[in-house]
Amino acid sequence: MSRAVILLSGGIDSYTTAGIAASIGHEIFALTIDYSQRHRREIESAKKIAASLGVKKHLILNIDLRQIGGSALTSDMDMPEGMFKGAIPSTYVPARNTIFLSTALGWAEVIGAGDIYIGATAIDYSGYPDCRPEYLKAFEDMANLATRLSIEGTLRFRINAPLINMSKAQIIKKGTIELGLDYGLSWSCYDPTVDGLPCGKCDSCIYRAKGFKEAGVIDKG
Amino acid sequence: MSRAVILLSGGIDSYTTAGIAASIGHEIFALTIDYSQRHRREIESAKKIAASLGVKKHLILNIDLRQIGGSALTSDMDMPEGMFKGAIPSTYVPARNTIFLSTALGWAEVIGAGDIYIGATAIDYSGYPDCRPEYLKAFEDMANLATRLSIEGTLRFRINAPLINMSKAQIIKKGTIELGLDYGLSWSCYDPTVDGLPCGKCDSCIYRAKGFKEAGVIDKG
Repeated sequence: MSRAVILLSGGIDSYTTAGIAASIGHEIFALTIDYSQRHRREIESAKKIAASLGVKKHLILNIDLRQIGGSALTSDMDMPEGMFKGAIPSTYVPARNTIFLSTALGWAEVIGAGDIYIGATAIDYSGYPDCRPEYLKAFEDMANLATRLSIEGTLRFRINAPLINMSKAQIIKKGTIELGLDYGLSWSCYDPTVDGLPCGKCDSCIYRAKGFKEAGVIDKG
Repeated sequence: MSRAVILLSGGIDSYTTAGIAASIGHEIFALTIDYSQRHRREIESAKKIAASLGVKKHLILNIDLRQIGGSALTSDMDMPEGMFKGAIPSTYVPARNTIFLSTALGWAEVIGAGDIYIGATAIDYSGYPDCRPEYLKAFEDMANLATRLSIEGTLRFRINAPLINMSKAQIIKKGTIELGLDYGLSWSCYDPTVDGLPCGKCDSCIYRAKGFKEAGVIDKG
């Protein structure tokens, strides 16, 4: 079994990505970043998902991006409502995927994992620059110049984003029908209510609801 | 004054880099990562250096790379002694500069700083892959695909490594003679003694001693 590091946030996309990686026989090392996000609730979901997938190891690493701010997820900015309409919304976290993938790269090198998986998707998404294929390719190129094992020729790193061309509905169908995932374990909402419930208004809630509706699947989350 | 984020470890190279950035008129935002390094002592030096340079802000961010390990600086591996002899030594920390530059990139985007400075040098160094010009160029290319401000065309990020082609002696001369830096504030040793003194044996101590000797400057550190 070849090892793979999976960035696991606790949402639908990273859960499905981890499920895909497991289904093709990788030994899963799940990495969750506690970045002091407004919806830290998702970390509890990541733990349940990691356990349900029987991962080899689940590492939860603190990187307090609230010290940097600049996003509705890591500061007191108002949370935008509704879907992406052309401008990148304030839920964009500066360099988040770069910081996360860099950390994944470090761990991958230590454990000898050539494959890094991220649940990035360029369809039904919020316009984040660090979810686009050209960005992921540039990260991969950089990663292979950055590391001892790659420049020694021992390991080549691949950044895998198997959902990149899938809609939320396609992702949910694949997870439910092909992979047998339980999305009741996952968490999407960016702005949980004081009672700990999804707000139903943020873009992540909206995309989730739209995805389940289009997939014809009941959301048990 | 244009803003710049400087990765400031507390060593000679990052101090000199910050001094250069300040000397050309940048407003300095210093970023120090507490990565649970064996030589966390260097963070105290970074604080003194930041104060002496009158930086606009000094951010110290925790990223516990000891949870990942894989290096003599972040685990209980034996510390190698002496200088680089062809093989990358165990003081290499997997993806360290990538993790640090990514964090710097996030902060730079938030504060609108196009310039990021790192004290990487490809001469008198330890063979680290993430100190080479081709790596830094690849990071810069990736960074400009990763961020909202870059893809919107508002800001182009530059990764500056002004010491890249300088020997340690050249760096020390420049800092002492041209920039008036006080290297007594800096810290280099990877493996401080229990009394908090430099070990004199690790590669970082060796390069420091060699650099001061060749520069003909007394080390007050």
